[in-house]
Amino acid sequence: MTEAPTLAVDAMGGDHAPEAIVAGLEIAAERHPEMRFLLVGDAARLEPLLGRFQRAAKSAEVRHAPDVIGDEMKPTAALRMRNASMRIAIDAVAGGEAAGVISAGNTGALLTLAKIVIKTFPGIDRPAMAAVGPSERGDVIMLDLGANVSCDVRNLIEFAVMGEVFARIVLGLTAPTIGLLNVGSEEMKGGEQLREAAELLKESPIGPQFRGFVEGYDIAAGTTDVIVTDGFTGNVALKTGEGALKLVRGLLRQVFESSLSARLGYLLARPALDRLREWLDPRRYNGAVMLGLNGVVVKSHGSTDAEGFAHALDVAMDMVLHGFNDAMRAGLARMERFSDTGGHKEADGGQPLAAAL
Amino acid sequence: MTEAPTLAVDAMGGDHAPEAIVAGLEIAAERHPEMRFLLVGDAARLEPLLGRFQRAAKSAEVRHAPDVIGDEMKPTAALRMRNASMRIAIDAVAGGEAAGVISAGNTGALLTLAKIVIKTFPGIDRPAMAAVGPSERGDVIMLDLGANVSCDVRNLIEFAVMGEVFARIVLGLTAPTIGLLNVGSEEMKGGEQLREAAELLKESPIGPQFRGFVEGYDIAAGTTDVIVTDGFTGNVALKTGEGALKLVRGLLRQVFESSLSARLGYLLARPALDRLREWLDPRRYNGAVMLGLNGVVVKSHGSTDAEGFAHALDVAMDMVLHGFNDAMRAGLARMERFSDTGGHKEADGGQPLAAAL
Repeated sequence: MTEAPTLAVDAMGGDHAPEAIVAGLEIAAERHPEMRFLLVGDAARLEPLLGRFQRAAKSAEVRHAPDVIGDEMKPTAALRMRNASMRIAIDAVAGGEAAGVISAGNTGALLTLAKIVIKTFPGIDRPAMAAVGPSERGDVIMLDLGANVSCDVRNLIEFAVMGEVFARIVLGLTAPTIGLLNVGSEEMKGGEQLREAAELLKESPIGPQFRGFVEGYDIAAGTTDVIVTDGFTGNVALKTGEGALKLVRGLLRQVFESSLSARLGYLLARPALDRLREWLDPRRYNGAVMLGLNGVVVKSHGSTDAEGFAHALDVAMDMVLHGFNDAMRAGLARMERFSDTGGHKEADGGQPLAAAL
Repeated sequence: MTEAPTLAVDAMGGDHAPEAIVAGLEIAAERHPEMRFLLVGDAARLEPLLGRFQRAAKSAEVRHAPDVIGDEMKPTAALRMRNASMRIAIDAVAGGEAAGVISAGNTGALLTLAKIVIKTFPGIDRPAMAAVGPSERGDVIMLDLGANVSCDVRNLIEFAVMGEVFARIVLGLTAPTIGLLNVGSEEMKGGEQLREAAELLKESPIGPQFRGFVEGYDIAAGTTDVIVTDGFTGNVALKTGEGALKLVRGLLRQVFESSLSARLGYLLARPALDRLREWLDPRRYNGAVMLGLNGVVVKSHGSTDAEGFAHALDVAMDMVLHGFNDAMRAGLARMERFSDTGGHKEADGGQPLAAAL
């Protein structure tokens, strides 16, 4: 690894690449001038762009990649694109040149390539996608958001550990609380698997931070800092919440255009409304993280602009600069020691965390 | 059954019973003076209330019930409460005295009692909870919302049939469109079960209305009129969306109280903002329906007021007056004929709809 902390950036992924990528880099480079960036993509397009963005130019080194993985390409096809910008950026992490990678390109390809090339973190069975969102009580992190459509007890416990570490290291919380997403029907709550995961979390070293089951309401209420769920439910919940916020944004726009006095009212309330809009701005929450890999992997929305991409870069930089993976190692070791000494069940095959199950 | 269409009303369920129940009945009775109500509960409390609500008094007959099923009571315990208001109201449906029942009480108890006493509709494997909510393109109905934590292919198809009938009969749509809720991760969409349900729906008589998979975003976007999912996912999605809307309502309140000019702005935009608030008012969507039973069963939120309970009564009245269960019978017969003649799989045990699977 080079001396300075380095992020590999897929300059060709996303709807507005490479312009929005380099413009976002310009913003992020100002925030963290100590970071170095490996900007991977079509050199003939990137070099002139860097001429226009001087801070990005100072912090970044261009690495040419002749190919781009398309948004519609299947992960299996993407795997064969060895000269694609995303692949070369991921290779830089696997080779130790960069501590992390960020892409606004094809999500499935990024997840698959990262898993195969960068590989899963020791002690983790399956990586998870996580994202931060707004709530009444501050930022909330939810995982998994779709990396694993079905999950077992071990996966859910690993998600809790990874989410707890993320909330401490990136959100800066001292003892983040954790909730396990369940349904609230009085008659039948969740399944056997959720009950078992809850029992194990209660007894684990993060037990004091575990608040038991939470419901859909609790996500926006911010009842816990970390929301743990399987990838199917998490994906639906994330998109349902985003859809509801989008609906209200559209309706508010209509409200304030509906009459002259409403327009005037908007002007009067504008500073406060702008703060609200900013607070709910999807760009402020851009950057889904793939946790559980041997390196930092961040996925930006493909449709975001420079500001949004800069935010995703912030997330990646925070993880690298605050030593996310070292904290993960410590968090997992703590769980492992618990399973070794607490020993409520025998190890099922030598996998560190599996011993806790 | 009595000549006039009759609804049995559990007068003792919910946080504000029996006052809010009778006050809601007063509103509903005005809308549908042809409906009759069997008001089940503590006669000593109900009779004086009816003295204050004259339209309700004209449309309702009181039936005394000495007991009440508490909100925290387990369904198994509720089953033994044979003199509870909810039970006597449900018995009135089973006995043919009433076409439907409505309660703002214990959800789990209502679901369990209704299933056991009123029984499942012929040809339906499992009843489902459904509710209507707002979207960019008008009202959307989603099911299951928690009656069945895990569902199989047959259940999902039955939910589609029941949701389609509801959207036609109660929402008044001519050919409602149907979507199957799935995740959008490029790498791995849904499971085997979702793919199989989608294939079967495509080939079925409601195939032309089936739009395939939809995602969380599509609920608030109103991409389809009916959203079909398992009870776990549906419960989480419903509550996540409600939570997001509640978050924005609270934030807007803060915005308009944040300064003098914002307060003035609110006053100017107020007529339009009030229309928006009314449109998103949870009371307007109060009344979850339990579809797939031998009678109309509607669950009101326990915390709602008279206006909200009146809306839940509207849903129940619409289902009774528009012959929801007759339409269900026709809808199921259509599916059955399809399975008999289309015959892509053999019947697995004589259950009508099972033949389609």
